[in-house]
Amino acid sequence: MTKTNLFFLSLLLVVFAACTTNVNKAGSENPSRYVIQTEVPERPAGQKDVLGLVAPRLDTVRVGFIGLGMRGPGAVQRFTHIPGTQIVALCDLHADRVEKAQTILDRAGLPLAAGYSGSEDAWKELCQRDDIDLVYIATDWKHHAEMMVYAMEQGKHVACEVPASMTLDEIWSVVNTAERTQKHAMQLENCVYDFFELTTLNMVQQGLFGEVLHAEGSYIHDLSDFWGYYEGDWRLQYNKEFRGDVYATHGMGPAAQVMNLHRGDKMNILVSMDTKPVNIPEYLIEKRGMDPDSAYNFANGQNTMTMIRTENGKTIHIQHDVASPRPYSRMYQVSGTKGFANKYPNEGYAVQGKSLDADIAPNLENLSAHNYVSQEVKEALMKKYKHRIHRELEEKAKEVGGHGGMDFIMDYRLIYCLRNGLPLDMDVYDLAEWCSLAELSRISIENNNAPVAVPDFTRGNWNKVQGFKHAFAD
Amino acid sequence: MTKTNLFFLSLLLVVFAACTTNVNKAGSENPSRYVIQTEVPERPAGQKDVLGLVAPRLDTVRVGFIGLGMRGPGAVQRFTHIPGTQIVALCDLHADRVEKAQTILDRAGLPLAAGYSGSEDAWKELCQRDDIDLVYIATDWKHHAEMMVYAMEQGKHVACEVPASMTLDEIWSVVNTAERTQKHAMQLENCVYDFFELTTLNMVQQGLFGEVLHAEGSYIHDLSDFWGYYEGDWRLQYNKEFRGDVYATHGMGPAAQVMNLHRGDKMNILVSMDTKPVNIPEYLIEKRGMDPDSAYNFANGQNTMTMIRTENGKTIHIQHDVASPRPYSRMYQVSGTKGFANKYPNEGYAVQGKSLDADIAPNLENLSAHNYVSQEVKEALMKKYKHRIHRELEEKAKEVGGHGGMDFIMDYRLIYCLRNGLPLDMDVYDLAEWCSLAELSRISIENNNAPVAVPDFTRGNWNKVQGFKHAFAD
Repeated sequence: MTKTNLFFLSLLLVVFAACTTNVNKAGSENPSRYVIQTEVPERPAGQKDVLGLVAPRLDTVRVGFIGLGMRGPGAVQRFTHIPGTQIVALCDLHADRVEKAQTILDRAGLPLAAGYSGSEDAWKELCQRDDIDLVYIATDWKHHAEMMVYAMEQGKHVACEVPASMTLDEIWSVVNTAERTQKHAMQLENCVYDFFELTTLNMVQQGLFGEVLHAEGSYIHDLSDFWGYYEGDWRLQYNKEFRGDVYATHGMGPAAQVMNLHRGDKMNILVSMDTKPVNIPEYLIEKRGMDPDSAYNFANGQNTMTMIRTENGKTIHIQHDVASPRPYSRMYQVSGTKGFANKYPNEGYAVQGKSLDADIAPNLENLSAHNYVSQEVKEALMKKYKHRIHRELEEKAKEVGGHGGMDFIMDYRLIYCLRNGLPLDMDVYDLAEWCSLAELSRISIENNNAPVAVPDFTRGNWNKVQGFKHAFAD
Repeated sequence: MTKTNLFFLSLLLVVFAACTTNVNKAGSENPSRYVIQTEVPERPAGQKDVLGLVAPRLDTVRVGFIGLGMRGPGAVQRFTHIPGTQIVALCDLHADRVEKAQTILDRAGLPLAAGYSGSEDAWKELCQRDDIDLVYIATDWKHHAEMMVYAMEQGKHVACEVPASMTLDEIWSVVNTAERTQKHAMQLENCVYDFFELTTLNMVQQGLFGEVLHAEGSYIHDLSDFWGYYEGDWRLQYNKEFRGDVYATHGMGPAAQVMNLHRGDKMNILVSMDTKPVNIPEYLIEKRGMDPDSAYNFANGQNTMTMIRTENGKTIHIQHDVASPRPYSRMYQVSGTKGFANKYPNEGYAVQGKSLDADIAPNLENLSAHNYVSQEVKEALMKKYKHRIHRELEEKAKEVGGHGGMDFIMDYRLIYCLRNGLPLDMDVYDLAEWCSLAELSRISIENNNAPVAVPDFTRGNWNKVQGFKHAFAD
């Protein structure tokens, strides 16, 4: 055999060895085998991470709002109740929405704000003002990242409705801009402040559940009555165009916080799977008279599942379903080595040793060796572990409202931290991690449910901070 | 370039093209990219499938039992209540267990059975008897397949506790033997007869839920109080040795029936993921004094998740957790285009149009657009859709018992079908599909959560029968 032959033969063998896809034995010899990698851009020179970022204290936080359709007016309303804020500017594509939002200020006895509308670029003028500290964005998903980046470039902190970014390119752009400008970029994920979730997080942080190994979350919400209410039909169109979990943050947020993501642990691998779509295509045919071929040319699956494994050997399970006729659920569940919490359809806790009499001989017919604690014990537990944030804000939050108060708590915390020069509860890496499911899940689904590597958005610093915490001024 | 060089070069290119694993775009051009295939043995010549298999009617079904430890005695007890049966032989490794089982017959006023014990091969003698029609196996998992194969080779029908096979080799051996001998091989999966599951199956079959797109199931049962009770510690040792969902059939059975697996649909791809193990290793250290290194040399994850996608674009989600301190759950859930059922922690149904007033304007603050039906409606629905099997057997089942009656119904149906020359409720392909998760999930987990092709155990005939049905004599 010639030398050249030998060269090709050995190269061939190397390729074969690296690529053999038909094995059914352990494949631990190659840790990235089968795993799809996406590009992680290098951190630009001279730029540093924003972990634990603190910005100079602001006595009064001067705010400009962009997007006054569905979520914006409620935010304006809530801000009229938050001390130390000044609503400086309001922007929407439509002038009548700006006018309507002005009436909120008027009713609250506040001065009217500067109004911006009438052009696709009106929001840029708002961002350019020099008397604004924070830009608050509640537009459609597709404009979120562009607006956040522009606002930070104009020297503003930004807060943005969920999902704050839809693609990996957008996410990296937001992360890089936050790092370059050292500005806060907070995603407005309200569910982490809901009562059961925050109380459970406190239990986890106090050690009641031991080590949390598995968490679940979801957005299961039949939107058939809502599709007609989105400007230019953007939400339905987005679902028509994209497969994957396009709205993962309500499930991811609470799960990520109990898992301490990029605060001692990180997501390594994600796999997603979906069903075919049926109900939304049928809706398009029945309610909008669309022809079946066009209607069924619909990308987003009716139910999308995602499994995630972390560096520390833990898992997260996330679902998305906005089409099936099912009761609303965020599936919030936390499973630890010493305890368990489950929110839907009924809130419940199980804690090791609390419900099982150790002296009772095991009974094979008894399928409930561990039970949920009684209603009485549950209430006592929830009282004992009530989070400081709820203790301080619960009454006011219920009065102001917004998804049962959690929206108010979210806004209040944002302002509280800005006014006290504290790190925000959610940083730009939370935003990146929670939003990354949209594109990563799509890649997995479009490649036969292959595993996809989850980028480390901190680019090497995921283990620098130990444990998720809320900051307080005292 | 020589001809030999060209040959190697082109071979190399082919291999490269087939193996490129690092893309992040849609890969629909290669439907099997990333997917691990296992070997599907060709059907031996002259052998045909056993879909819808009927065997000659048996007036009296003469039964031999193997395995009288945990599950066996209860089965013997139940058979004393089933008309048209004769308990001919009893076998266990330990003579005292055979004696104890004889007392069950004695108390029921039945003649004692032939006893077999004292040797690892005693069960073979039982199988060789020429006055037995059915061998009923309730031993440890590792002996199931070998015993089923041997019993069929001796001309007997077999029924075997779950999981009836642990590896793909075992499964193919059982399938091939059933096809060659044309004998029934039924896995004793009781959960498909549980009240909520069977009622829900009937609703699905009557169209109440529209098209079922997604189903869930699990075995979540903290076994910490039971580990000491398995002969030679086989169950814990099995978990110590194997990763993957080693006990999937309780979740798979009810999900498979609503999905009509190998009766118009089939599983195509499976992906699994697990957490690290903690509680069982800690149990081994605390309760058995094992050194930590040995204890943590433990394969099975604390929580194992599996996602499955079918040919018709539907999904199944399965979990396994026998270590976490959580309430028992089989997670049974069915999500269709017109309705929804959920069993844990509370049984509930939601049906399109039943709970939502169409005239009510959508309210964004209302997170329960679709609610579970009221307790009253639920009871009315369950009464209306009560399955014929329950209507006929419920009272007797509750009297005889066994996991709330479902064990009795399972045994009764097996005997009923054998006596009437009907296809059994569960065939050998059900057994194969439900058991295949053990090895397929292990392969996925050990290969970075890669997708694994689920073999078509019918070898091409999965679409021959349309829809899962229970057979009746009239």
